[in-house]
Amino acid sequence: MRLAELSERSGVAIATIKYYLREGLLQPGRRVSATTADYDDEHLRRLRLVRALIQVGQVPVATVREVLRHVDDDSLGRTIRMGAALWALPREPEPAEEDDDEAMVTARGEVDRLLETVGWSTARELGSLSPVHRSLVVAVATLTRLGYPWDAALMEPYARLMHQAAMRDLDFVETYPSEAEKVETAVAAAILFEPVLKALHRLAQEEESARRYGLS
Amino acid sequence: MRLAELSERSGVAIATIKYYLREGLLQPGRRVSATTADYDDEHLRRLRLVRALIQVGQVPVATVREVLRHVDDDSLGRTIRMGAALWALPREPEPAEEDDDEAMVTARGEVDRLLETVGWSTARELGSLSPVHRSLVVAVATLTRLGYPWDAALMEPYARLMHQAAMRDLDFVETYPSEAEKVETAVAAAILFEPVLKALHRLAQEEESARRYGLS
Repeated sequence: MRLAELSERSGVAIATIKYYLREGLLQPGRRVSATTADYDDEHLRRLRLVRALIQVGQVPVATVREVLRHVDDDSLGRTIRMGAALWALPREPEPAEEDDDEAMVTARGEVDRLLETVGWSTARELGSLSPVHRSLVVAVATLTRLGYPWDAALMEPYARLMHQAAMRDLDFVETYPSEAEKVETAVAAAILFEPVLKALHRLAQEEESARRYGLS
Repeated sequence: MRLAELSERSGVAIATIKYYLREGLLQPGRRVSATTADYDDEHLRRLRLVRALIQVGQVPVATVREVLRHVDDDSLGRTIRMGAALWALPREPEPAEEDDDEAMVTARGEVDRLLETVGWSTARELGSLSPVHRSLVVAVATLTRLGYPWDAALMEPYARLMHQAAMRDLDFVETYPSEAEKVETAVAAAILFEPVLKALHRLAQEEESARRYGLS
């Protein structure tokens, strides 16, 4: 397809596509003449991923380039490709508190106990090597500092629910035929499903609260 | 307790507490002399909530004031107090797209079907009156535009998982003795639990991915 059709089918303006091409976020099309190039479904898919990262995930362009480098590195196994791309995504700003204050030490201990209880052996092995592990410790430490001392027992049912959600996520990812699409969908899902889960969670709180206490 | 002790026990600097007092986010202490005031556990609790809203939730001061007004309005039922406070919290920025583009219409239909399937009657009744309902429609429309057409059937299992999470949230809220503490905890929970759930979700994705595809 020509640039105009790529723009129409993706809903991304031509000027924006040209910008992505210049920034190396999209592979150049196949040259068919001095002034025109041909694009295919792979371009369309990549464009959707880039748009998800930039528009919804508000990921900076340099980071998008890094994420795509991992996504495209087929010398790596699938877990590492998906993981490496996720690890490059921006995370919540971390609080300024000292790394080794009491709350962080307590939180690290509770997260360790949790991972043992639910039997997440990879998470235990990787430990603080994984930025996601660190985010969890920081989030638990923040709760602790603010007077909500969440321990492993309180987190366990949530961890099991989130594991069920993660299994569904991967089942969805596996419906895509090619390896490249699976990895791309896993990255897009990490960004795009979170707002849905968050909204469902709040809506469920509203619903359950009305059931328990009524609306008036 | 005196201001110095309130600062020490809450971990909030004296200057910051004075700022919150000036801004009306914290009730003045009980005057015991021309220069000193006495604070109690209610001040400590309120300070933690304000800190959760501002530090973790990055809620602007004017909005914090609005949230607290709802929290403190005991003429309202519990669902409304918790809901009204949640509704005043900042939400994800909404995309600039037209309200009635095809994706929004489709998303609204799928959300309606979902709510019917899972039997969330309050959510159906309130509909777009609830900002949370609207966030869900916008999130689903974004997925649809980016080539991931999520329908009611795909969302249903996630909605059921999030309902289980919401039941746990409210069970936790109900462990607090007073009505004021219950409402305060519900608001704090909406802000503070989300980073924990998000981190647990990503960690579970990592774990499940390693189980299915190995680490190399």
